[in-house]
Amino acid sequence: MDLKSKIREIQDYPISGVNFKDITTLLQDASTFKFVIDKMAEPFQDKKIDKIVVIDARGFLLGTPIAYNMGVGVSLVRKKGKLPYKTVEETYQKEYGPDTVAMHEDTLQKGDKVLIVDDLLATGGTLDASVKLVERLGAEIVGISLIVDLPFLGGSEKFRDKYDLQYLVSYDSE
Amino acid sequence: MDLKSKIREIQDYPISGVNFKDITTLLQDASTFKFVIDKMAEPFQDKKIDKIVVIDARGFLLGTPIAYNMGVGVSLVRKKGKLPYKTVEETYQKEYGPDTVAMHEDTLQKGDKVLIVDDLLATGGTLDASVKLVERLGAEIVGISLIVDLPFLGGSEKFRDKYDLQYLVSYDSE
Repeated sequence: MDLKSKIREIQDYPISGVNFKDITTLLQDASTFKFVIDKMAEPFQDKKIDKIVVIDARGFLLGTPIAYNMGVGVSLVRKKGKLPYKTVEETYQKEYGPDTVAMHEDTLQKGDKVLIVDDLLATGGTLDASVKLVERLGAEIVGISLIVDLPFLGGSEKFRDKYDLQYLVSYDSE
Repeated sequence: MDLKSKIREIQDYPISGVNFKDITTLLQDASTFKFVIDKMAEPFQDKKIDKIVVIDARGFLLGTPIAYNMGVGVSLVRKKGKLPYKTVEETYQKEYGPDTVAMHEDTLQKGDKVLIVDDLLATGGTLDASVKLVERLGAEIVGISLIVDLPFLGGSEKFRDKYDLQYLVSYDSE
């Protein structure tokens, strides 16, 4: 399946010079949505995954059907202040300042084998903070599964040597 | 299954007097998560649903596995400013002021049979705005599927006469 034809590109969004990859067109197409979920899960089907870690908010859209497909539970990474129970937090730098993500401190058990799911990897700030949270909770990251990699933004090179990083499509430039 | 035992209650969150229903404990438990998704989908399995409408952000966690289960696509309701393409918007009153939600204007087709999914129904402001957006796009709401109803907050009575409103658990008071 030609997935790029299912992803809408929006010029100069959210700022001039960025060619935004809009996955909502992919999600709303029934057969493409199913294909994507199955393909994102496929490399990890025999890895005895215990939990899918889903990154707020587009990661929620992909990680929960993968968890349903695999028959496992879901753990959330959310922006600080969105989780109601005791959390662990990680602060990281974004383009215009710091941001903080959090996980519930009891959402993973030591030794849990975890797959992290998000939609797209750009500079990798949120993913890096998520990796740190998962590892602080003592879980083992078996892999990272994405739809889109934008390697020219430098994110994937931070992760690909250390983790099993899988994606379905890659773009060479904006 | 005793679902209430799987939902964590957090006293005085986010404000004093509120007994918050934390569904993350339900999501992270593999068998409970699967049970909930199957039960939320069950009343609508023979309704020829075309699209699941998922409400940002906890509705994303439930609506996408339901869509995967049913073999249909997903349409997003998000806070204003989060969707990159042309949108329709609805503003509604929340406790401390107005809020606006949006859908992409091309995410539903006229006559689409739609199931709206969210985690919890309280006063129903966001759900009411979502219903209006779906109907403005010309789609037909076949039903609304939730985990939790809090009828003492008045939300469900706004919808239950007009729509097939389904939920898995209900609480009588805070």
